[in-house]
Amino acid sequence: MYRIGFGIDFHQLTEGRDLWIGGVKIPHHKGALGHSDADVLLHAICDAMLGALALGDIGMHFPNNDPAYKDIDSKILLARCFELIMERGYKIVNVDASICLEAPKIKPYSPQMRDVIAGILKVSVDDVSVKATTTETMGFVGREEGLVAYANVLLTKA
Amino acid sequence: MYRIGFGIDFHQLTEGRDLWIGGVKIPHHKGALGHSDADVLLHAICDAMLGALALGDIGMHFPNNDPAYKDIDSKILLARCFELIMERGYKIVNVDASICLEAPKIKPYSPQMRDVIAGILKVSVDDVSVKATTTETMGFVGREEGLVAYANVLLTKA
Amino acid sequence: MYRIGFGIDFHQLTEGRDLWIGGVKIPHHKGALGHSDADVLLHAICDAMLGALALGDIGMHFPNNDPAYKDIDSKILLARCFELIMERGYKIVNVDASICLEAPKIKPYSPQMRDVIAGILKVSVDDVSVKATTTETMGFVGREEGLVAYANVLLTKA
Ligand SMILES: [Zn+2]
Ligand SMILES: [Zn+2]
Ligand SMILES: [Zn+2]
Repeated sequence: MYRIGFGIDFHQLTEGRDLWIGGVKIPHHKGALGHSDADVLLHAICDAMLGALALGDIGMHFPNNDPAYKDIDSKILLARCFELIMERGYKIVNVDASICLEAPKIKPYSPQMRDVIAGILKVSVDDVSVKATTTETMGFVGREEGLVAYANVLLTKA
Repeated sequence: MYRIGFGIDFHQLTEGRDLWIGGVKIPHHKGALGHSDADVLLHAICDAMLGALALGDIGMHFPNNDPAYKDIDSKILLARCFELIMERGYKIVNVDASICLEAPKIKPYSPQMRDVIAGILKVSVDDVSVKATTTETMGFVGREEGLVAYANVLLTKA
Repeated sequence: MYRIGFGIDFHQLTEGRDLWIGGVKIPHHKGALGHSDADVLLHAICDAMLGALALGDIGMHFPNNDPAYKDIDSKILLARCFELIMERGYKIVNVDASICLEAPKIKPYSPQMRDVIAGILKVSVDDVSVKATTTETMGFVGREEGLVAYANVLLTKA
């Protein structure tokens, strides 16, 4: 009784915002623009969990014009998405995510991101993968205008 | 006995074409350009099903220079891809797809898309997920030059 | 006992380099730029295998500033990633990958790519899918500045 989920998320990078990725605040001269804290990685994982059970998408659950979600910590959104799948009797087998961004290097932060995500999703840190790549300076990611995250989840009946 | 499939598809948006997404005609001043009806979502799902069983890709099965497929309804292509996996003894566990486009909002149409897709693939509407996101105005999707769809499928032996 | 893995990789295309995709050298006036042989497809599959077991990413295992990997044949990297999952008791169920590039047509080479990959990963060629699509002339792929590969793998306990 497995289910597959996929998520993708995009945010612009801009001066004067914090850069939250995977629930971790990363020192950088730019941050991600968005209604919430704009955590591209947690949003992609939220969408993958919702998608695995056809529960809609993050935009439906947490509209970006709803003041309730203004500057919200996306760890709260991730926890709510996890509740939704738990209520339906599912648990996480594993999460595999990739972040595409030109700078900064996020490798030093990936262990902390995995800890945060594993804690919320009630799995071992060995069941949460956070990878990173540049786009080799190509496109809007390469020009440091924005960043993208992809996530796959595999769920099973608890 | 599970199998994973992945699909991605791209189409330009242009004046003077209909906009078919997920088997639904969506009112918009631009439509998707292509040899068939250019349904980016159904094409991504076709490719994910073909890919799960290593049966080639949509371009091999339905060449875009073959008059047989000129302006064809992509629901027919989806049904043919489903036949191919059924003939090999597989069925769909679930489909999770994401459409990246700047406009129009497709949320009002996603229930209808899921109905169409679930009907063709002989699964419950709860086994078909259609999510949508903008690219936050970045890149060719953000400039409304085109749209992209991603799809994952999980198959199992029937 | 299944696990899902996802990988994505990007390389620039440039004159004066060979074009290696899926372990096959493809005649073309441009090749992929990178520290290794820059095989975008094998790199995406490596990342998907590493990601499925949360073993880091290709950049951590094979740093692009390590002279040991200068111009290295990526088939060697794929074989090392496969060893890492075997050592942990996993095997490949199936691989489904998509290459996005404008030119050349890679369809004639996909059977050979699948042979190479299946041989390294100790699966049947029917368990390895290599699909291809253009981006309909859009973006950096459409301008032939670069290419992108996506890969999903499904693993199971051996
Ligand atoms: Zn977001
Ligand atoms: Zn198409
Ligand atoms: Zn690479």
